[in-house]
Amino acid sequence: MPRTYTAIFEEAVAALQREKRYRVFADIERIADRFPKALWHGPQGPREIVLWCSNDYLGMGCHPASIEAMAATARSLGTGAGGTRNISGTSHPLVLLERELADLHAKEAALVFTSGYISNQSGISTLAKLLPDCLILSDALNHNSMIEGVRQAGREKVIFRHNDVEHLEDLLRAAGTERCKLIVFESLYSMDGDVAPIGRICDLAERYGAMTYIDEVHAVGMYGPRGAGIAERDGEMGRLDVIEGTLGKAFGALGGYIAAAAPIVDAVRSHAPGFIFTTALPPAVAAAATASIRHLKTSSAERQAQQANAARTKAALADAGLPVAPTPTHIVPVIVGDPELCKAASDLLLAEHGIYIQPINYPTVPRGTERLRITPTPFHTDALIADLADALVAVWRKLGLPLREHALAAE
Amino acid sequence: MPRTYTAIFEEAVAALQREKRYRVFADIERIADRFPKALWHGPQGPREIVLWCSNDYLGMGCHPASIEAMAATARSLGTGAGGTRNISGTSHPLVLLERELADLHAKEAALVFTSGYISNQSGISTLAKLLPDCLILSDALNHNSMIEGVRQAGREKVIFRHNDVEHLEDLLRAAGTERCKLIVFESLYSMDGDVAPIGRICDLAERYGAMTYIDEVHAVGMYGPRGAGIAERDGEMGRLDVIEGTLGKAFGALGGYIAAAAPIVDAVRSHAPGFIFTTALPPAVAAAATASIRHLKTSSAERQAQQANAARTKAALADAGLPVAPTPTHIVPVIVGDPELCKAASDLLLAEHGIYIQPINYPTVPRGTERLRITPTPFHTDALIADLADALVAVWRKLGLPLREHALAAE
Ligand SMILES: Cc1ncc(COP(=O)(O)O)c(C=O)c1O
Ligand SMILES: Cc1ncc(COP(=O)(O)O)c(C=O)c1O
Repeated sequence: MPRTYTAIFEEAVAALQREKRYRVFADIERIADRFPKALWHGPQGPREIVLWCSNDYLGMGCHPASIEAMAATARSLGTGAGGTRNISGTSHPLVLLERELADLHAKEAALVFTSGYISNQSGISTLAKLLPDCLILSDALNHNSMIEGVRQAGREKVIFRHNDVEHLEDLLRAAGTERCKLIVFESLYSMDGDVAPIGRICDLAERYGAMTYIDEVHAVGMYGPRGAGIAERDGEMGRLDVIEGTLGKAFGALGGYIAAAAPIVDAVRSHAPGFIFTTALPPAVAAAATASIRHLKTSSAERQAQQANAARTKAALADAGLPVAPTPTHIVPVIVGDPELCKAASDLLLAEHGIYIQPINYPTVPRGTERLRITPTPFHTDALIADLADALVAVWRKLGLPLREHALAAE
Repeated sequence: MPRTYTAIFEEAVAALQREKRYRVFADIERIADRFPKALWHGPQGPREIVLWCSNDYLGMGCHPASIEAMAATARSLGTGAGGTRNISGTSHPLVLLERELADLHAKEAALVFTSGYISNQSGISTLAKLLPDCLILSDALNHNSMIEGVRQAGREKVIFRHNDVEHLEDLLRAAGTERCKLIVFESLYSMDGDVAPIGRICDLAERYGAMTYIDEVHAVGMYGPRGAGIAERDGEMGRLDVIEGTLGKAFGALGGYIAAAAPIVDAVRSHAPGFIFTTALPPAVAAAATASIRHLKTSSAERQAQQANAARTKAALADAGLPVAPTPTHIVPVIVGDPELCKAASDLLLAEHGIYIQPINYPTVPRGTERLRITPTPFHTDALIADLADALVAVWRKLGLPLREHALAAE
C-alpha cells in the first residue's frame, strides 16, 4: 500500500501520544499459587510485583478447582472446541456450563458466547432487531460492548441519565405502552463502583410494558447468596428478562453469557451472528468456569473476605489522606484527574514499589476523572494493604499531588 | 415483559422451523487421545462416533504438545487473564504468542483478539474508520465476520463478484488512485474450498494504490512450508498489508489475530473497541496456540497427511457415485441441495452409522446448495474413509438421493 496509508496510521497513534493517552501494556506473569503475586516482564527483566488491579476479583482463576478442571479437561477433550457451536463445537462441558448458568440465575436457559463483549454486542443487537420498531432505552454510562450492541441493532435509541429513574420514566411515558421497548443497563458500574436501582427500573418496565436487559459483568460471583449478582442480592432477579454476565472476571476464565426464558435464548441462539459464526469456547475453559461457579454457589467465604478487604483498603487510603472515592462496592477508585499524572503515578508504583495498578484514562472514564482503580481481593492481606497506602502516599508526594490536610497532620 | 414479546421470539424460532433450518446442536465429547473419535451425548445416552466435520483440521487440539502447554500454563498462571489487555490482562504467554505470529507471517507485529470473528469485525471496521473517506472493496462470498466489520465501519462499500479480478479492477479504476481503498477477501473459502487469486489481487492493489486485508482463517497451519497459509504457499505473503487468521481451527485452540506492519498493528491496538474493552485470552489458551504454531512451523507431516487423506476421501466418494464437488483444497463438500434432506442425511449418518457430519444449510451457504461438508484430517484412516463412503451410499439410497449411474453400475 502507498506510504500515505502508513502515515495515516502513524498519525492515529501519535495523536494519542500527544493527548497522553497512548497505552503501554504491562507484560505480566501471574503466579497462580501465590496470587496476587506476579512477575512483571519489564525493561530490566522479570521482577516480582503485587497485582492491585486484577478483575479476577476473587482469585478464582487461581483456585485449584478451576485449574484442575481446565487441566483435566484439556487432557481428556483437547485444547479447543474444533468448530462453531453448530458445526461440531458444542462440547459436553459447554452444555453443562449453560445448565449451571441457567440454574445460577434461576432462568429457563442460558447461552454462552466467547466473551461478555460479544454477548452484549450480539445479544442486544439481535434482541432489538427481532422486536419490531423497538425503542432502546440505554443508561448513559453503559459499557462500550452495550453501546456497540445498541448501535448495531440499527433501532431508535434514547439515552437516560445515569441511574436516573425519573428521566427513564419520562422517556418510557413518551414512547407509550404499545411500542416495543428494551431497557439496557448495568447492575454495578465498574469504574465508579456504583449500583443501579434495579427494583425501581423493573417497576417502570412493568408499568410501561418494557423488556429489561441487565449487565451483571462486575457483580456475578460477588453478590447474592449464591453469587448470581446484585439482582440476586436485591431479590429482583426474577423480574429481569435477560441477565448478561461474564466468565472472565470473578469466575476467573473467559467467555460471556445471557440467561433468560427459553424462547428468548432460543431466538438469540438461532439469530445472533456473533454467536453463530465463530468457534465455540474450548471445553477446558468451560470446565474451569463451571468449577468456579459451582464453588461460589455454596461458598460465601470469598465474597465476605473481598468485601472486608475492600473496606479495609478504603479506610487505609482515606486515613492516609488519599482521594479515594466512596463506593458501596468492592471497587476502590483513587482519583488523579489528569492523564499524564495518572500514568506517572502508575509507573512510579510499579518501578519503585512493585505495585501494579494500571492508569485509567479517557475514553474508559471521562476526561478530568482519570484514576487509579484498585480492586482488593480476598488475598490482599493487611500487610499488603498497609504497603499500598504507604506507596501511594510516597508517589503522591513525589508527584506533588494533593493529600488531605488533617490526615497529613494526624500522621 | 408483556406476553407479546415472548410471542415475537417464539415466532422468530418457529419461522426457522418452518423453513427447515432450525439448528439442533450435537452434544459432543471429544476423546483427545483417540481423535477423530468422540462421544455423542444423544437422546439414548453417550455413544461413540467418528467426527467428520471438525475444523480442528489437523487434530492439533489433541496434540500432546498443545495439551501439555495448556495444562502446565493453567497450573502456573491460572485459568484466566484476569483483565482486559490494558488492565492487567497482558500475560507473558500472550506476548510470546504475538511474537510467534509476527514471525509466522514475516510481519513486524501481530495482535491477538479473543476470536477470528472479533479480529475481522473490529479489525476491518477500525482500519476503514481510520482511513479518511475509505472505499471498501469486499468479495461477494466474504464471511459474516468480515461483512459485519465492513458494516460497522460505516464507510462506502462495493462488492466484487467472487474471486473476479476483472470486476475488482473495474471497481478500483472507477474509484481512482487518489482515494483510500481497502480490499477485503479470503484466501480459502471454507464452504466451497476454492482459493483466491492472491497474486492478481495484489497486482491490482499495487496498480491502484489500495490496501489489502486477507482472511487466512481456513488456511493457516495447513498451507505453505511453515503453515502460514495460502499466501505463503503462493509466495505472496510479503505483498499483503494485513493477514488475519484464527487460533481456533488448525491451531486447535481459540482466538484470532492480525499480522501487519507495526504502525498498522499499533493503530488497531489503540483504537479497536472489540480489542480494548474485553477480557484478554487466557494465558493457557495462548500457550496451547503457541505450541501448535511452533510445531507446525517445522513439521509438514500433518499437512501432507491431511492433503493425502482429503484426496483419498474425494476419490472414494466419487467412485461411489456421490455428488462430491471438486475442490483444490482439504474441504470435501457433498451437495444435497435441500435443507430437509440435508438434515435427514446428517441425522441418519449419526443415528445409524455413528458418523457425525453437520448439515450446512442457508444462511451459511446459498439456498439450493445445502451440503454435507466433510473435513478429512491426518487421523482419518483408510478404513474410516471406506466406512464413510459405505455409510453415505446407504443414506443416499434410503433417502432416494441421486447417485451417479456408472458408479452404481461399476459397484
Ligand atoms: C460492563 C461490562 N460489560 C461487558 C464487558 C465485557 O466482558 P468480557 O471481558 O467478558 O468481554 C466488560 C469488560 O470487560 C464490562 O466492563
Ligand atoms: C472465513 C472465516 N473468518 C473468520 C471466522 C471466525 O473465526 P473464529 O472461529 O476464530 O471466530 C470464520 C469461522 O469461524 C471463518 O470461516
